[in-house]
Amino acid sequence: MIIVMQSKATDAQVEAVQHRIRDLGLKPHLSRGEFRTIIGAIGDESLMRAELFAALDGVESVMPIMRPYKLASRDFHAEDTVLDVGGLKIGGPTITVVAGPCSIESEAQFRETALAVRKAGAAMLRGGAFKPRTSPYSFQGLGEEGLKILQAVGREVALATVTEVMDVRELEAVSRYADVIQVGARNMQNFRLLTEVGHLRKPVFLKRSPAATIEEFLMSAEYILSEGNRQVILCERGIRGFDNSTRYTLDLSAVPNIQKVSHLPIFVDPSHATGRRELVVPMALAAVAAGAQGVMVEVHPHPDKAMSDGPQQLTPDAFALMMRELAPIAQAVGRQLQKPK
Amino acid sequence: MIIVMQSKATDAQVEAVQHRIRDLGLKPHLSRGEFRTIIGAIGDESLMRAELFAALDGVESVMPIMRPYKLASRDFHAEDTVLDVGGLKIGGPTITVVAGPCSIESEAQFRETALAVRKAGAAMLRGGAFKPRTSPYSFQGLGEEGLKILQAVGREVALATVTEVMDVRELEAVSRYADVIQVGARNMQNFRLLTEVGHLRKPVFLKRSPAATIEEFLMSAEYILSEGNRQVILCERGIRGFDNSTRYTLDLSAVPNIQKVSHLPIFVDPSHATGRRELVVPMALAAVAAGAQGVMVEVHPHPDKAMSDGPQQLTPDAFALMMRELAPIAQAVGRQLQKPK
Amino acid sequence: MIIVMQSKATDAQVEAVQHRIRDLGLKPHLSRGEFRTIIGAIGDESLMRAELFAALDGVESVMPIMRPYKLASRDFHAEDTVLDVGGLKIGGPTITVVAGPCSIESEAQFRETALAVRKAGAAMLRGGAFKPRTSPYSFQGLGEEGLKILQAVGREVALATVTEVMDVRELEAVSRYADVIQVGARNMQNFRLLTEVGHLRKPVFLKRSPAATIEEFLMSAEYILSEGNRQVILCERGIRGFDNSTRYTLDLSAVPNIQKVSHLPIFVDPSHATGRRELVVPMALAAVAAGAQGVMVEVHPHPDKAMSDGPQQLTPDAFALMMRELAPIAQAVGRQLQKPK
Amino acid sequence: MIIVMQSKATDAQVEAVQHRIRDLGLKPHLSRGEFRTIIGAIGDESLMRAELFAALDGVESVMPIMRPYKLASRDFHAEDTVLDVGGLKIGGPTITVVAGPCSIESEAQFRETALAVRKAGAAMLRGGAFKPRTSPYSFQGLGEEGLKILQAVGREVALATVTEVMDVRELEAVSRYADVIQVGARNMQNFRLLTEVGHLRKPVFLKRSPAATIEEFLMSAEYILSEGNRQVILCERGIRGFDNSTRYTLDLSAVPNIQKVSHLPIFVDPSHATGRRELVVPMALAAVAAGAQGVMVEVHPHPDKAMSDGPQQLTPDAFALMMRELAPIAQAVGRQLQKPK
Repeated sequence: MIIVMQSKATDAQVEAVQHRIRDLGLKPHLSRGEFRTIIGAIGDESLMRAELFAALDGVESVMPIMRPYKLASRDFHAEDTVLDVGGLKIGGPTITVVAGPCSIESEAQFRETALAVRKAGAAMLRGGAFKPRTSPYSFQGLGEEGLKILQAVGREVALATVTEVMDVRELEAVSRYADVIQVGARNMQNFRLLTEVGHLRKPVFLKRSPAATIEEFLMSAEYILSEGNRQVILCERGIRGFDNSTRYTLDLSAVPNIQKVSHLPIFVDPSHATGRRELVVPMALAAVAAGAQGVMVEVHPHPDKAMSDGPQQLTPDAFALMMRELAPIAQAVGRQLQKPK
Repeated sequence: MIIVMQSKATDAQVEAVQHRIRDLGLKPHLSRGEFRTIIGAIGDESLMRAELFAALDGVESVMPIMRPYKLASRDFHAEDTVLDVGGLKIGGPTITVVAGPCSIESEAQFRETALAVRKAGAAMLRGGAFKPRTSPYSFQGLGEEGLKILQAVGREVALATVTEVMDVRELEAVSRYADVIQVGARNMQNFRLLTEVGHLRKPVFLKRSPAATIEEFLMSAEYILSEGNRQVILCERGIRGFDNSTRYTLDLSAVPNIQKVSHLPIFVDPSHATGRRELVVPMALAAVAAGAQGVMVEVHPHPDKAMSDGPQQLTPDAFALMMRELAPIAQAVGRQLQKPK
Repeated sequence: MIIVMQSKATDAQVEAVQHRIRDLGLKPHLSRGEFRTIIGAIGDESLMRAELFAALDGVESVMPIMRPYKLASRDFHAEDTVLDVGGLKIGGPTITVVAGPCSIESEAQFRETALAVRKAGAAMLRGGAFKPRTSPYSFQGLGEEGLKILQAVGREVALATVTEVMDVRELEAVSRYADVIQVGARNMQNFRLLTEVGHLRKPVFLKRSPAATIEEFLMSAEYILSEGNRQVILCERGIRGFDNSTRYTLDLSAVPNIQKVSHLPIFVDPSHATGRRELVVPMALAAVAAGAQGVMVEVHPHPDKAMSDGPQQLTPDAFALMMRELAPIAQAVGRQLQKPK
Repeated sequence: MIIVMQSKATDAQVEAVQHRIRDLGLKPHLSRGEFRTIIGAIGDESLMRAELFAALDGVESVMPIMRPYKLASRDFHAEDTVLDVGGLKIGGPTITVVAGPCSIESEAQFRETALAVRKAGAAMLRGGAFKPRTSPYSFQGLGEEGLKILQAVGREVALATVTEVMDVRELEAVSRYADVIQVGARNMQNFRLLTEVGHLRKPVFLKRSPAATIEEFLMSAEYILSEGNRQVILCERGIRGFDNSTRYTLDLSAVPNIQKVSHLPIFVDPSHATGRRELVVPMALAAVAAGAQGVMVEVHPHPDKAMSDGPQQLTPDAFALMMRELAPIAQAVGRQLQKPK
């Protein structure tokens, strides 16, 4: 950690910083320059908190040297993590396409979608049973009834399933019915929920909050990892931007950016990021070209009648076309689309 | 709701939109211009969802006319809401200052702070027992032990108390010990938690998420209101910005902006917004000048030893000075600081 | 244009709005709903300005129906614009790669780079002579001397050249030496400069300002087009985001988003967007997969000795590798890399 | 400057960094920690550029210690700068209110406004003659005719005048007619224009670009200062945010934030920041409470007929009321409104 003192810092203030470093069992390194005095605290940075120094008198700024996450970092785990989801390999050389409707609306609607996306080559099936909705007056999902449909149809079409959990009290049910547990963007810093999914031994699909820096995103993964659950899949799904012609701004450079510092697989969800059907396919192709290990897209047999997120859901035909376009992109980057298990 | 058709929309597509409007029991109004056809759907907009139209073929954009919140809106409740918190009037002509440490670290630390802020004129006492922390390795709060200290010291100094709830499972305990329940910025769209605090008959202090538009913020209030709990206090605490010299960007124009459309009291928290002690006081003064009905600031007897957020906590002396500066600002806008009950 | 009246708007206020619409030679359409009165003004929206209505008493909001740009819009020019730059076709089915150093530092450095990028397959050559630098103390470019090198080396290696103009007074010189005139991100709303390049009959490479919405970006193109110069190439180069691990946030969905509404070719510059060499190649691949008609990347023979932007410049070897990776992506989307003329 | 090496950096890479530091005539300080090696380069940081190190192999990150601006910094000029504009003291203990219409539309309109704002207590008069407009089809200002009106009316009402320059070619005329030269937000990084106004011996009113960090804002001031013109007034006028219910997000904490690091006076323009008349007054009050040395507001005798920015302009009556509300706020912070010279 590097502590930069204010230009007018007194000797006593400089000494107080060094004292605190020694208190932590570390050794201070003092460098007096013409305009600033700088103090380095070299050692296990996890023992220190920047705040402990930033609040001291005479300190101008504190710069951590180490990243604050460990288990999520390549420093501690150099190789890519590859998860096994019922035989599917997530995070390895193949690219996993997850598809399905925003919400499970009925068994018929979900089965129709599941059959279509399986036929088109999706490797995993998504469908919301508990829906986080901005408005209390919007459709909130079928709840446990939806979970049952998810499981039944998933087995029927032999696709692994992923669905969102919104509440610690629903976690037991969700983890009973689904193969992968999604923590949604709005709950990325619901730390209690992160802790609880950390106790599971099931893969967690963690979506980035629209306000989260990449470091904050990885810190949320760290919550899960530090509880013992090492099966975390990250998903970029758009951050807050200033142009409202799309719902969010897809931060695609997050893919290689995260891959530099973390070993966890990273997916991209172009449906929620853009909110516009006609932008989903180009962004799915771009995600794979950028090196994403998977994409999640929303598909609905009748988007214009969908109970949520209609404008961003692909029809089964559009999805099948996307899969045909995705395959050569995957090949161009030396990979291939994962077959369903 | 106004539906704008694409320039190349066919008659059949225009008819399909009108058909759907009629299906909802409403009447379409068609206006054909030189370049665009526009269809108005006048009526109870709560029956419609923009998505229902946006997903139809040939539709370019859909513009809602009404705001999506009702109970939070001045359209439905013209007068300012004034809450009663054990005799304190929140949201009326007086200005409420809430102060206390970021975290309750010990009974001694909390009592020292409480006595100091009471003496300086704070009307309400804050202190975190359950702490949402970005890192799993940071101090997470004293938990229920902290709640007990909160209640005991609050009674001792005769100040109403506010503390954060992070988990539906802790809500019962939090609401037993505290006078006002805080829902933090990271949980602003934890809809299950909103629903549960909506079932309480206690005031809720709802902080804006750093990624939330004002409309989304009010929709989260609507979740609480629609469950029957009409005691909601809003709090602006900084949004995501691009300049990292402050933690967040304090969106102070949110104060009059919200007051135009909503009757709920709106507070400002300059401590979390700026993350820097030296900016807290100017922003507290500005908040009152802008019309905020209250401010929440963090105070710690020894910020440089604080277990969380040290750099943004005021010393008791700095807080007392702030209170002396705040009083004439309040007077300048025709108001006064609320005395403790 | 749709004018939404406040819920408490008086009849006189409603009448005043209608009166103003009639004054403009248009016909108002009145729709009275339960909660709001809405007035449509159908006709040539270029005669109206939203401000004319927004400033009237009783008006809640004004929603334009038409986009404010015309010449840049597909409504007025349905087919993709294809420019001819000395035999190169820009905006058609081929993908144009523009490469070269951030700054022209010397004839030797520029020639070495030019030969390398030509050999690797770049179709156009970039190099800065007038450099917009955040700091007055940074290298500001070689000026006209740089322009001469640009032209001489461009002819030598038979590549069309592009360079930035910063000042209306330098425009004559820049347009004499270069084939394509770049207007940089910081000058995207330097309206005088836009007007002047609009008088040229040379292609203009217009970069998006990091704060510009897509509509504002296209309005800046409209400035050029409306002066008679129809040769405009757009370039997305990153917008302001909140994560400072990259310089800017590359808004890649701007590519298909712009292509929906405009006929102008759209390029992507991953070098400036990310500011980090290791992210440039993945983002270049993603840009082509997303449908960009070209990419611009910075290449320097010795990035660690570059006088500007060293960390984001590729070595010639890295660039050659990128070109080999780009070709199959282009093919995967049914296109191919443009050969130099 | 602190250079952090990657965890896998080789000895040769560490040596190369130290070598380069020595090349610059500085001394490297090496600290080898368990996980990272850190190299400090202590000395005159203006000799170094972070890029020179960031582009070296094995470097993970480079952290400057010193701020990149000098003349704008309190390190080099500890006391507040106080400018003299024809007898007005700008930046001292008084608060300067600048008012006038967005655009000068006619002599009659400008005189009516000028008389009204003078009567209400404004100390300086604004009015646009050259207008930067997003659309080429919007009113572009009266040009030199407007400048003449500005000067004539300014003299008539005995108020110092400020108006915007958009083009280096117009600078001579603007500086002939106006007392203070405004560089608008869109030209904050028009470096040629900054250099030219740096050659003047007239005060420059520099507005912050909506995409500029505070450091970038001060670097633009540095351009002017480094050319010899020490009369710079800064103005915060809103940054890009994600909530489109206001035009921009007023970053009011920029006021004390800038005052910590710079000696230059800082004003606030709530008219452009919010774009909504009803938010202008609360934000003007907040600006003064936050410590701003001045505010600039737009006033028009008939906002609903204004040729630009009608919705954000105050009527003369509303402005007079604002002035009456502003006076006690100024007093509350120990200051007073500046009387016209």
